[in-house]
Amino acid sequence: MNRKPNVVIVGGGFGGLAAAKALAGADVQITLIDQNNYHGFQPLFFQAATAGLAPNCVASPIRSILRKQANVQTVLAQVTSVDLVNGRVHAYSGAKDEAGPDITVQFDYLVLASGARTNYRGKDEWMQFAVGLKDLDDAVEIRRRILLAFEHAEREIDPTALEQLLNFVIIGGGPTGVELAGAIAELKRHVLASDFRSIHPDQAKVILIQGGERILPQMPEGLSVKATRYLGKLGVDVRTKQRVKDITAAGVTLADGTFIPSSTVIWAAGVSANAITQTLGVKLDDGGRVVVEQDLSIPNHPNAFAVGDTALFMQDGKPVPGLAPAAAQAGRAAAKNILRDLANQPRKDFHYVDKGVMATVGRSLAVAQFGRLEFGGFLAWLLWLFVHVTFLIGFRNRLAVLFDWAWAYFTFSRGARLITGHRMLAGAPDSVPDAEPEPSPVPAKAAH
Amino acid sequence: MNRKPNVVIVGGGFGGLAAAKALAGADVQITLIDQNNYHGFQPLFFQAATAGLAPNCVASPIRSILRKQANVQTVLAQVTSVDLVNGRVHAYSGAKDEAGPDITVQFDYLVLASGARTNYRGKDEWMQFAVGLKDLDDAVEIRRRILLAFEHAEREIDPTALEQLLNFVIIGGGPTGVELAGAIAELKRHVLASDFRSIHPDQAKVILIQGGERILPQMPEGLSVKATRYLGKLGVDVRTKQRVKDITAAGVTLADGTFIPSSTVIWAAGVSANAITQTLGVKLDDGGRVVVEQDLSIPNHPNAFAVGDTALFMQDGKPVPGLAPAAAQAGRAAAKNILRDLANQPRKDFHYVDKGVMATVGRSLAVAQFGRLEFGGFLAWLLWLFVHVTFLIGFRNRLAVLFDWAWAYFTFSRGARLITGHRMLAGAPDSVPDAEPEPSPVPAKAAH
Repeated sequence: MNRKPNVVIVGGGFGGLAAAKALAGADVQITLIDQNNYHGFQPLFFQAATAGLAPNCVASPIRSILRKQANVQTVLAQVTSVDLVNGRVHAYSGAKDEAGPDITVQFDYLVLASGARTNYRGKDEWMQFAVGLKDLDDAVEIRRRILLAFEHAEREIDPTALEQLLNFVIIGGGPTGVELAGAIAELKRHVLASDFRSIHPDQAKVILIQGGERILPQMPEGLSVKATRYLGKLGVDVRTKQRVKDITAAGVTLADGTFIPSSTVIWAAGVSANAITQTLGVKLDDGGRVVVEQDLSIPNHPNAFAVGDTALFMQDGKPVPGLAPAAAQAGRAAAKNILRDLANQPRKDFHYVDKGVMATVGRSLAVAQFGRLEFGGFLAWLLWLFVHVTFLIGFRNRLAVLFDWAWAYFTFSRGARLITGHRMLAGAPDSVPDAEPEPSPVPAKAAH
Repeated sequence: MNRKPNVVIVGGGFGGLAAAKALAGADVQITLIDQNNYHGFQPLFFQAATAGLAPNCVASPIRSILRKQANVQTVLAQVTSVDLVNGRVHAYSGAKDEAGPDITVQFDYLVLASGARTNYRGKDEWMQFAVGLKDLDDAVEIRRRILLAFEHAEREIDPTALEQLLNFVIIGGGPTGVELAGAIAELKRHVLASDFRSIHPDQAKVILIQGGERILPQMPEGLSVKATRYLGKLGVDVRTKQRVKDITAAGVTLADGTFIPSSTVIWAAGVSANAITQTLGVKLDDGGRVVVEQDLSIPNHPNAFAVGDTALFMQDGKPVPGLAPAAAQAGRAAAKNILRDLANQPRKDFHYVDKGVMATVGRSLAVAQFGRLEFGGFLAWLLWLFVHVTFLIGFRNRLAVLFDWAWAYFTFSRGARLITGHRMLAGAPDSVPDAEPEPSPVPAKAAH
């Protein structure tokens, strides 16, 4: 080629960022497209959802992460479809709730890393009652619902309504469900005890519903037992072998007819690939994932790769799990195969290296597995912490971020530069005060 | 009275919180009503609006601030009207974008500290194009607009559209306008230079429009001159004696016919009292403020007080300014008059003590006035910083908060517990993927 090859990466998550970074210094022109201007650190979203960390602590602007990499152009846009035959990505420019002008980006190589979305298993009407936890806005919405439930409960005198407000139901006993359940249990203990007058921590209940035999089915059985015990210590009611029949504004009905009144239901029972994969015209699995070749390319489209939650990659007869490290490894491997192509070298097959799995239950309890080694408790929790902080550092110098948190003002904190939040009319001043007075009790103007 | 007197405080800003705190330990039952669950530290909102500080750094949950004060009950509700004759406050319960059930709170004493809202001087249609900066949602919206303008500019090739995207117009040359202008000028310099590829910092322009002869009219003329010079150093185009004739999506038209194309216009040209005052049936000034007595009570309603931006208090023939310290002083004074009533002591007149005014222009430049002392530059900036950190500490132990920022995870950070953000449909998974694919490029699931 006379011009530099165009590499288009769809998605600035773990897979997409790893691909972009692996192409640093290469003689290509990279276009990274995401509908958010930030990379979300998903393993800690449960913390943002339970007010343990501020949303800005678990996300970094993509431009900042890649600002020293001169061959990357970052584009804020929502991809609507991919035309594999003609090598084109179609998108609306702008953030995800904007409807900007259409854009088309031509690619020589594609890395599709558009991730997953919450899968309600055909029951999309449950969405409004049971929020998933797939992006930062979800996390903020969950936090909002939990905190509002506390606020309403504080004023509620009807015992039935109070029970509904103080039951927190998490559906799905995988790592996300377990971590959310543990964190809500800790939140209610600490917050209700100190900040509220009428309600008592013991009145609030956290209920974890798992369809299968045990929670954390991805882990060895011993760790499921440990995690169940840890959750029990925190007062979480773990119910296994329970299927959900219905979810309404009033609560959750289980397959056996049991009704659990709850105004705060969280859905952590599964994801499917982003809908972009539906536009590819290639074979997908039940979860909407592209069944990729051993070099991560999309069948019959050797210049297009799919990685992370967008792809189903079989290794030793099993699918590679939908974990951040797996996505990052695949993103890197796809990028290296592009580099090999450009150097006229043969491609290599992807090989996922399992570095272990872990889940934290509470502030000092976790379970972890590394190969044959499995353990739980405080040591596992320390390790969990260490791994996550290390991971954060990998994407952006998070030691500096730790400092930013304290000295944000002095250091031009980049962490705060996130395009989040949506304005609603309720927040705007009222044009007809008499008709509908708008109270905005922020009494004092700036002190200057 | 046989029962404890009910003191209702409307608004958890500087005035309302100061009143609540001044009643600590008193034999009263306090109900503090706010539509947000947090106290916003308004003097630093301009930082949140310009991505200098994360929103959670400039707000604290009201419950946390008052959690050790046993005689306070905090209620999350939007006050719709106040019935002074029957001693009742009417409200919708819930956060400001919820429509919860009606509630009525009876009071023996009232402290109305419901603050101000942006005043578009009868041109409410400008609201959609020119955001004010009166609450934290405003700050997030302004940040969003500024950052999106950068994003769009990065992809824009049409020079006219580019100019519109990179012109940032601030209307109003008071402290808020000056601080916003300086902060945007710094933001564009730092962010555009490091994170963007196509646009250059010099292409972006910050224009500050002031109707009067000079910016910072509240301050001595020497400081206006200094502030103008500092803004000039940062590249801000300060235009005085300019009235705004119209604002549209395309930009701002001045009274002399000049059109400034701009997609990001911020309104810092004035506020009026919250619309609650319209329901009182008492005399208001042009800004909707209650013209209060010398003891801060509402005329003919000695058991009801108005403080801060809700009130017009004349002292030495001049109105007390709408500043945080003035609101806090008034809130405290009103509370003390309630205590005097209960102790059968005569009330005292409010006397505002002017502790000075300051405005920061950039990261190392500010102007300050303390009585006859007036100065600018780095020293003024250090002082500004010192005063604001001290102020923060007053409302909530912000030394601990500084630590929270770094160690949020270890310390059960309360700073993150803010009910902010609004969910829009665009953020939710799509139920008909084929019809309208929903791209949510967050590629990887949690690493566990």
